[in-house]
Amino acid sequence: MKVIPASEFSLKREVEYGSPEQNERVRFIIEEVRQHGDEALRRFAKEFDRVELQELRVKDSEIQDAYGKVDQEFLEAIREAAVNIRRFHEKQLRSSWMDLQPDGTILGQVMRPLRRVGLYVPGGKAAYPSSVLMNAIPAQVAGVPEIVMVTPPATAGVEGIDPHILVAAAEAGVREIYRVGGAQAVAALAYGTESIAPADKVVGPGNIYVALAKRYVFGVVDIDSIAGPSEIVVLADEFADASYIAADLLSQAEHDEMASAILVTPSETLAQAVKLEVERQLAELPRREIAEQSIRDYGAILTVSTLEEGIDIVNRLAPEHLEILVQEPFAYIGKIENAGAIFLGPYSSEPVGDYFAGPNHVLPTNGTARFSSPLNVDHFMKKSSVIYYSKEALLRDGGKIMSLARHEGLEAHARAIEIRLEKEGDSRG
Amino acid sequence: MKVIPASEFSLKREVEYGSPEQNERVRFIIEEVRQHGDEALRRFAKEFDRVELQELRVKDSEIQDAYGKVDQEFLEAIREAAVNIRRFHEKQLRSSWMDLQPDGTILGQVMRPLRRVGLYVPGGKAAYPSSVLMNAIPAQVAGVPEIVMVTPPATAGVEGIDPHILVAAAEAGVREIYRVGGAQAVAALAYGTESIAPADKVVGPGNIYVALAKRYVFGVVDIDSIAGPSEIVVLADEFADASYIAADLLSQAEHDEMASAILVTPSETLAQAVKLEVERQLAELPRREIAEQSIRDYGAILTVSTLEEGIDIVNRLAPEHLEILVQEPFAYIGKIENAGAIFLGPYSSEPVGDYFAGPNHVLPTNGTARFSSPLNVDHFMKKSSVIYYSKEALLRDGGKIMSLARHEGLEAHARAIEIRLEKEGDSRG
Repeated sequence: MKVIPASEFSLKREVEYGSPEQNERVRFIIEEVRQHGDEALRRFAKEFDRVELQELRVKDSEIQDAYGKVDQEFLEAIREAAVNIRRFHEKQLRSSWMDLQPDGTILGQVMRPLRRVGLYVPGGKAAYPSSVLMNAIPAQVAGVPEIVMVTPPATAGVEGIDPHILVAAAEAGVREIYRVGGAQAVAALAYGTESIAPADKVVGPGNIYVALAKRYVFGVVDIDSIAGPSEIVVLADEFADASYIAADLLSQAEHDEMASAILVTPSETLAQAVKLEVERQLAELPRREIAEQSIRDYGAILTVSTLEEGIDIVNRLAPEHLEILVQEPFAYIGKIENAGAIFLGPYSSEPVGDYFAGPNHVLPTNGTARFSSPLNVDHFMKKSSVIYYSKEALLRDGGKIMSLARHEGLEAHARAIEIRLEKEGDSRG
Repeated sequence: MKVIPASEFSLKREVEYGSPEQNERVRFIIEEVRQHGDEALRRFAKEFDRVELQELRVKDSEIQDAYGKVDQEFLEAIREAAVNIRRFHEKQLRSSWMDLQPDGTILGQVMRPLRRVGLYVPGGKAAYPSSVLMNAIPAQVAGVPEIVMVTPPATAGVEGIDPHILVAAAEAGVREIYRVGGAQAVAALAYGTESIAPADKVVGPGNIYVALAKRYVFGVVDIDSIAGPSEIVVLADEFADASYIAADLLSQAEHDEMASAILVTPSETLAQAVKLEVERQLAELPRREIAEQSIRDYGAILTVSTLEEGIDIVNRLAPEHLEILVQEPFAYIGKIENAGAIFLGPYSSEPVGDYFAGPNHVLPTNGTARFSSPLNVDHFMKKSSVIYYSKEALLRDGGKIMSLARHEGLEAHARAIEIRLEKEGDSRG
């Protein structure tokens, strides 16, 4: 792992738009599903997943059976995690409010859950039960009455879905599950088919085709942010434990070859110690090849003169995960402008948040923490403004409203006020 | 205006993706600006706006001069509107919060403003001072330290910008203004040029090129929703005043030929009265041709059996603006699931909200009220999660976290916990 001055480092990341061929492929798939519905879903399942789908929807009995296929330890852990996630997200709930004015006018903001949300769960190795909880529970807390899951068959040619995924879904209250994946699943959620009713929003991670499909249907439905590779930045001083930092960097690096793990520190001693620890721990990892490539291509130990300088670097990197392992971590979070999740102190290892503590693990990647937020209850709600203007207020303000409308050349706007002032003004005088 | 049973009506709206040529054009413009910066901006200004731009940035003196070019009535109205808009949006502000747990763990959510926001303001006839207020003030209330405006020159070949726009910007606290428009302006805000620093988010309406550019840079920066044609639905009973309804429908219809104005009512008498009133008022409108085409192509009076049925229709249409003109309007808003802004009672004509009352006039169009919200302070803020896990909590939960990580095949995640349990567990015993 290279140790370099922070000033020499830049992390260049690009937004993934896909190739023209990939885009055209996705457009084709979506339009096919839009026109041919279930038939197209079955056709693509055969073509891409080598599955002859009979029933698109997973039977209740299959969900029930899944409980027999997972061990008790897993079930207990996932249940406890679900309690923590629910508890944290319940604190995000907001009420509708009204602003009552003395002239009788009432202005307000109404908060409502979306009606139907589709959750994409990737198949195979990338199917994470924890992600099912993290995506479904905030929607459930928001009050979304219909949460539907789509996921491709676990193995090409086999109809079954990983029982851990089914159990996680059931624990999060999701019972409407379809065995479809890829761009065609996103299309089904956006436009609906005979079997799958259209949703208002599609969330969840996926491969490039899923990401492009989400970008394509954005506007027909809402989508969550398009996830890039995962990132961690650790900001640490000389009091931090090098072995903890190395382990946390590697837990990021094992995700995929494009994941980025970066230490920022004013301590040259710590920098060298972490470098050695990473090498030592790396040698023993099952996913060593992935982690090694990630560390080589996107990993770095950046030395800075002061922690203040380190914070500037952090804000520029806008990491998905930020760990602050310094003597008094709370002294620094006020200065952190851009980070998806901030882990403070030696016991807040990133996996604590990935799995268990309660905050969401769906976080803004690729520098988008500058403007995006962790997945949260607001993402599953919408607001409406309310305006109840009183007669008194309209008679008082009508002239100004008409003046502004006429300045913009919108005479019919002015007349909608004028016709009221004429009638109602009369009734006063 | 056609009067038909609601069951016979459907409003088909499509998401605007632009032609392949338009998309390629936008891609080219954006990549040129990304590579050549200011030079590209000047080149495109010459090509598209027929302007030889000297200074990109509008001088403070030009803003000052603009005050001499607008009348006092306009200035007073815009100032009062700004006060109302600010007041309403201040109620949307939320605090960061912490959840302190008895084991010493602290979980929380930090709220922060975006650092820099770019506001696109269209040129020519579509330049609305009210839109400047509606876009800039929520950003300002959120605490965004840098709000920058881009707008094309007012007339082809002339460098000046409409003084009403400059005054509205100044009143909303925006003093950094550049005379660039089109896709090139969006590119400058996303990637930055020598003169224009990159922003974190781009908001504001624009033509198809601006919309496509926003879609293209989404991910590099955040964008607001992509606006479609404007809509109003009026839900009214027999007690409503037909002339008010007609005037309100026309105030929507005059926006553009694709705007949609719809009355939903159980009263056949009201339906016929509104139909006549629309014809009568239409004849006298300056923007008659636009309004006429809008009413013909996208307008309708829908008759329903009951107000309850009317509410179902409203929820399916998910209108940008909804007026409820019935005897007891508050009895119905609880049942409205989808609407951008809800106007209640006879004095809450849509222009009251367009210009003055305080709630935002940037609203979800094209049926997107199913999942989108009026522009609000949250759109200019981001959240970070905070996790400060205590040693006690980690020793208690570590085993479960490791179990979940290992179930997902992420061994390095498990080891990041294990290494701590080994060291810290020892120090306990």
